[in-house]
Amino acid sequence: MAQNIYDDPAFFEGYSQFRRSREGLDGAPEWPALRRMLPPMQGLRVLDLGCGFGAFARWAREAGAAQALGLDLSEKMLEEARARTHAAGVTFRQANIEDLVLPEDSFDLVYSSLALHYLEEFEATCATIYKTLASGGHFVFSVEHPLFTAPSHPTWRIQNDGSKFWPLDSYLMEGKRITDWITPGIIKYHRPLSRYVNSLLLSGFQLLHVEEWGPSPEQVAEWPELAEELHRPTFLLMSARTPEHSSDATAGSI
Amino acid sequence: MAQNIYDDPAFFEGYSQFRRSREGLDGAPEWPALRRMLPPMQGLRVLDLGCGFGAFARWAREAGAAQALGLDLSEKMLEEARARTHAAGVTFRQANIEDLVLPEDSFDLVYSSLALHYLEEFEATCATIYKTLASGGHFVFSVEHPLFTAPSHPTWRIQNDGSKFWPLDSYLMEGKRITDWITPGIIKYHRPLSRYVNSLLLSGFQLLHVEEWGPSPEQVAEWPELAEELHRPTFLLMSARTPEHSSDATAGSI
Repeated sequence: MAQNIYDDPAFFEGYSQFRRSREGLDGAPEWPALRRMLPPMQGLRVLDLGCGFGAFARWAREAGAAQALGLDLSEKMLEEARARTHAAGVTFRQANIEDLVLPEDSFDLVYSSLALHYLEEFEATCATIYKTLASGGHFVFSVEHPLFTAPSHPTWRIQNDGSKFWPLDSYLMEGKRITDWITPGIIKYHRPLSRYVNSLLLSGFQLLHVEEWGPSPEQVAEWPELAEELHRPTFLLMSARTPEHSSDATAGSI
Repeated sequence: MAQNIYDDPAFFEGYSQFRRSREGLDGAPEWPALRRMLPPMQGLRVLDLGCGFGAFARWAREAGAAQALGLDLSEKMLEEARARTHAAGVTFRQANIEDLVLPEDSFDLVYSSLALHYLEEFEATCATIYKTLASGGHFVFSVEHPLFTAPSHPTWRIQNDGSKFWPLDSYLMEGKRITDWITPGIIKYHRPLSRYVNSLLLSGFQLLHVEEWGPSPEQVAEWPELAEELHRPTFLLMSARTPEHSSDATAGSI
C-alpha cells in the first residue's frame, strides 16, 4: 500500500502552501496541457484517482460531467475536498488505489494527477481502470516524469560557467525511491517511460498521446524557474482509451 | 538531407572495426530484443532503411521473407553489403530516406536500425512508411535513445566514490547535436521519446511496444561495460503496426 504521507500534519501543512494547492488547477503549470488531452466532458461519468482537494472533480462537473467521484488515501485531503465542494453530483471517498474494487463498465473518464508514481505496481492498476471504463472510455493522467524520479541524487548540479545539468543514473532500475520533499522520507516508485507505455498497451488500451511537459515561453516569462523543465521535465502526461466494443462498432457500421 | 558520414574514409574504417560491423546482428547487444519485436518473417516483403552492410536483409531472407530491399545513403556501405550477399531476393539501393518515394501498399515490414536519429524530421518519414506498408504491416526500429542524444556534454561524470552519472540537459530541446564519434563533427538530431511516440500515432500507427534497452545479467557478465546502460540507455526500440483495413476486418468478422 502506498505511503499515506498526506495525513502527516507537517507534510499536509507544507503541501497546502503550494500554488497548486491554493489556486487549484490554474496553479499547476501543466494543467493547460493535461486539459487539452481530455475528451469533451459533457455527460461523462468521471473518476479521479488521488483527488486531493477535489479541484478536478469540481472542474469536471462545471465542464458538464454528469457526475464526478474523487478517491484519495488521505482523510485530511478528503475533508478539505468536501469543505471546498458545494456542487451536487460530486462525491469523495477514501480508498487505496492498489486495493480498488470498481464496478465494470461504469466510468467514461478516469483521471489522475501526480498520484500513480506512489504505486509500486502500475500494470495492475491499468487493468482495474480498463475494466471500470466503458467502451471508448478515456484514461488521462500525469505522473512525476521518470527523469525526475530516477536519480539516486536528484538535485541540479551547477557548473562554474553557470550552466547546470541533472545527474541522471539508475534510469532502468525500477523500484522504490526515498526522497526529501516537504518532509523527509517520501516514498515513490520509479519506472522508465516505456513501462508506463507498455503497461497501458498490455492492458488493452490504445495510446492517444504522450506529453513530456515543458513550459511555453509565456509561462517561463511568468515563472522563470520553469525554464529548467526544458532541461529535465518533471511531469509526464499520457492519454489512452479503451477500444470501442465490437458490438458498438458493428452497430455503427451497418 | 542527412550527413553522409559513412562515406568518409576515416569514419568508414573506424565503423568497420566495431563488433556489430564485424559480427553482424549477433555483434549488436540489442539485437535479441529487437528480433523479439519482429512479426513472423515467412513470406514478408521487407524494407530496411539504413541497411549498412546488409546483415538484416540477409537475415530476413534466411528467416523466410519473400524479398528484402536495403536502402542506404552510403555507396561504400552498399558496396560492402553487395559483396557480403549471395542470396537471391535481397537487393540494395542508394537512397536518401528523407526524399524517399515508395510505392503504396508494397511492404509488410519496414525495419530500421540506428539510422532514424540522423534525420531532422521524423514525422514525415513515418507518413512515408505508413503509406508503403500494407494493411496490418509492421514498422520496427531502433534509434539512439533520447537520453543518449540530449546532453550538450554527453560523457559520463565519475564521482570520488567511483559512482557515475550522466549529465543530462536540453532534453526537451529538439534539434541538431554535433558530437565526436569515431571522427569529429557527427550530426544527429535529438528528439524526446514522446516525439517518437506521438509521430507514430499521428501518422495512424498503432503502437505495439517500446523498449528502452538494457542488458540481461548474462550480457553484463560477457560485456561488463554494458552495465552502464542500466543507468542511461543508449538504444530505444519501438514497434508499431498499421491498422487492418476495414474491408479486411469486415471480411474477417462475417
